[in-house]
Amino acid sequence: MIPVEEALEKVLSAITPLSHATVPLLDSDGLISAETINSSINIPPLDNSGMDGYAVRSEDIKTSSYEKPTTLRIIEETAAGTIPKKKVQSMTATRIMTGAPIPNGADTVVRFEDTNDSERLRQNSNSNINIYVPAKKGTAIRQAGGDIKIGENAITAGTEIGPAQIGVIASLGNTKIKIFRRPKVSIISSGNELVSPGHSLPEGHIYDINTYSIASSVARLGGTPEILGIAKDTRKSLIDLLEKAKDSDLIITSAGVSAGYYDLVKEVIQDYGSVDLWSVKMRPGKPVVFGELQGPQNSKWPSKVPILGLPGNPVSAMVVFHIFGKPILKKMMGHKKWDPVSIEATLLDPIENEDGRRVYARALIDQTTNGEYTAKLSGPQGSNVLTTMARANGLAICPEDTTRLDPGSIVRVELF
Amino acid sequence: MIPVEEALEKVLSAITPLSHATVPLLDSDGLISAETINSSINIPPLDNSGMDGYAVRSEDIKTSSYEKPTTLRIIEETAAGTIPKKKVQSMTATRIMTGAPIPNGADTVVRFEDTNDSERLRQNSNSNINIYVPAKKGTAIRQAGGDIKIGENAITAGTEIGPAQIGVIASLGNTKIKIFRRPKVSIISSGNELVSPGHSLPEGHIYDINTYSIASSVARLGGTPEILGIAKDTRKSLIDLLEKAKDSDLIITSAGVSAGYYDLVKEVIQDYGSVDLWSVKMRPGKPVVFGELQGPQNSKWPSKVPILGLPGNPVSAMVVFHIFGKPILKKMMGHKKWDPVSIEATLLDPIENEDGRRVYARALIDQTTNGEYTAKLSGPQGSNVLTTMARANGLAICPEDTTRLDPGSIVRVELF
Repeated sequence: MIPVEEALEKVLSAITPLSHATVPLLDSDGLISAETINSSINIPPLDNSGMDGYAVRSEDIKTSSYEKPTTLRIIEETAAGTIPKKKVQSMTATRIMTGAPIPNGADTVVRFEDTNDSERLRQNSNSNINIYVPAKKGTAIRQAGGDIKIGENAITAGTEIGPAQIGVIASLGNTKIKIFRRPKVSIISSGNELVSPGHSLPEGHIYDINTYSIASSVARLGGTPEILGIAKDTRKSLIDLLEKAKDSDLIITSAGVSAGYYDLVKEVIQDYGSVDLWSVKMRPGKPVVFGELQGPQNSKWPSKVPILGLPGNPVSAMVVFHIFGKPILKKMMGHKKWDPVSIEATLLDPIENEDGRRVYARALIDQTTNGEYTAKLSGPQGSNVLTTMARANGLAICPEDTTRLDPGSIVRVELF
Repeated sequence: MIPVEEALEKVLSAITPLSHATVPLLDSDGLISAETINSSINIPPLDNSGMDGYAVRSEDIKTSSYEKPTTLRIIEETAAGTIPKKKVQSMTATRIMTGAPIPNGADTVVRFEDTNDSERLRQNSNSNINIYVPAKKGTAIRQAGGDIKIGENAITAGTEIGPAQIGVIASLGNTKIKIFRRPKVSIISSGNELVSPGHSLPEGHIYDINTYSIASSVARLGGTPEILGIAKDTRKSLIDLLEKAKDSDLIITSAGVSAGYYDLVKEVIQDYGSVDLWSVKMRPGKPVVFGELQGPQNSKWPSKVPILGLPGNPVSAMVVFHIFGKPILKKMMGHKKWDPVSIEATLLDPIENEDGRRVYARALIDQTTNGEYTAKLSGPQGSNVLTTMARANGLAICPEDTTRLDPGSIVRVELF
């Protein structure tokens, strides 16, 4: 048996980030930027007003007060989207709305509330305005380039794109972005006992679960699942499906990796490339296949395709996907980090560790009123009991060298 | 000014969960189940083997040991997906693979490792098998209904669907699920100064950011954004866009809600329904419009459509969406909880609170090696500086009644 970290390191050493693609900005949420974007404009482009008020010369209003207001002549009104035509000269002011460019000559903005601005005044465009307060140079002025200056770095290659990044890129006028493209992931279940949901279930058969749970896990991470179906336990059936996967970025199979001789997956995929079957020191999920396929000797594929073989038990499949599949996809998508989010929690139930493997126990994490986390096992831990996975929001870890964690122990939990 | 909680309560009192829709299972990730699903089958359907081994009668192997193995006659081989034909009678065994149904008569499974099973043996189907260990009744047998029993509740209405729930539903044979449908959200920006990204930028104009940041925020939550474009500061332009939104579940506008008289949004939408402009006790994001539209008096819409009017500044728009928009969408989508995930962190920078509002400071949350969180402000906090939003992963909160939080203070942070 090999430790989890060693297996993960081997897996990731075979994975490289995918090629880049240029996509519409709104399709990039969650992806990693493959380009550094420097701004070709100032943001904001011009000095503009941060408030609705009057653009004035600060020196004109130095002595202003409610008792002795300064009276200025209004020379113009300006709103966002227009360019002021007149220069603010001594003892004049421009009525200005939020976002409007600051007129020449003005160096500060006094908000309406500190003037005698009113509806009546507004009707009469030749009127004067009384200013009640002094204001330092630059007050309420948002400077050109105050957010991003021309030439400045707005987005760095390797940044994860989210709504705010999408906003920043839009602010530069861009509608597209170059990202690490989404992995196309072929998903194959295997086993004569499996029937696709939606069909009737002959005696002795069960519904194929892993196609569904793994495809949705792939999609959630930003990959594109391609569901290829169920391979029967024959060489031909499995080969037929593998051949359909030759253009994908990753193949994920489930079942067919136990020691049983009914399981052909390992044998077939060894003919198709270099593959290892590892007994990983973890529970659930001990048998893990990983390798690279490139088709049969006489008809090689265009390029190597990594393959991850998950155990058949639905819980084991999801846990192995969590440990190995997520980091594979994240590395392919250009992420630099793929460690799961983990917290420390007080364990409320015991975790037994019978055979020195690392135990990943399905747990329901809760937060007490004082902010501390508790971890309660979500039910029976048999690797076929998927309902306890559905009730869990994390995996509580009992280390390899610990035979039992008692209630009250502090336990590390990886969150989904 | 009204407190954030009071405003949120008013908003949510006008929101009801949307109608239900039946969707393909793989399209349901992140949505809320609108149905309780009871299983019509046992999962697993039959008692089956948890290992590759031999199905035997426990009483036959009571005295087995490596020194004195029990020799049983192999009567059959069975694999997952087949039904055993023969009954295991005294001193016989069925070779059985993981997942295969337990043959009649057998009450326990002994794994290969505890027998003399070998490739040679396998070639000869009439052979005997030596069992080296005793086994209690039921060992390595997964009982029918051990995960879910016929009639048992598999998914409860109100459950959030994720990959494990999708797996559970697939295990019942279902390929569809009834969920609270995705909200269709019409998005309108307003302002003469705005230009859509991808077009050239005349002097005095800026690119429309909010359409992009808000549309991607809506999509991330599971809503379907409908981008309607930019309303000019004319009554007609705004009405034209609002009329296009009449079939949506929510309208989100941005800008047009400040006190300036160039802003028409408030005026127009008041003609179209009942709308409040609130001065919410928060920074950034003070002005917030909320109401319900139902078209002009002479041409009412089929039903009322809630409207959320965000401030025009891109940061304010995103913060107000975080505070009000997310809970609205979550309630529409059938969630019962919509509080943001929040943590306590040690503040590394000061937060000033000038005017008794609740300050939401853009912050970068990090975790120290001992697991504690720190919150560092992500840059200048001007509400037009979107780059500091892009660098943040949460909002550090300075309460209304606190004038300043010093570095070292413990601060509550809402995570994105």
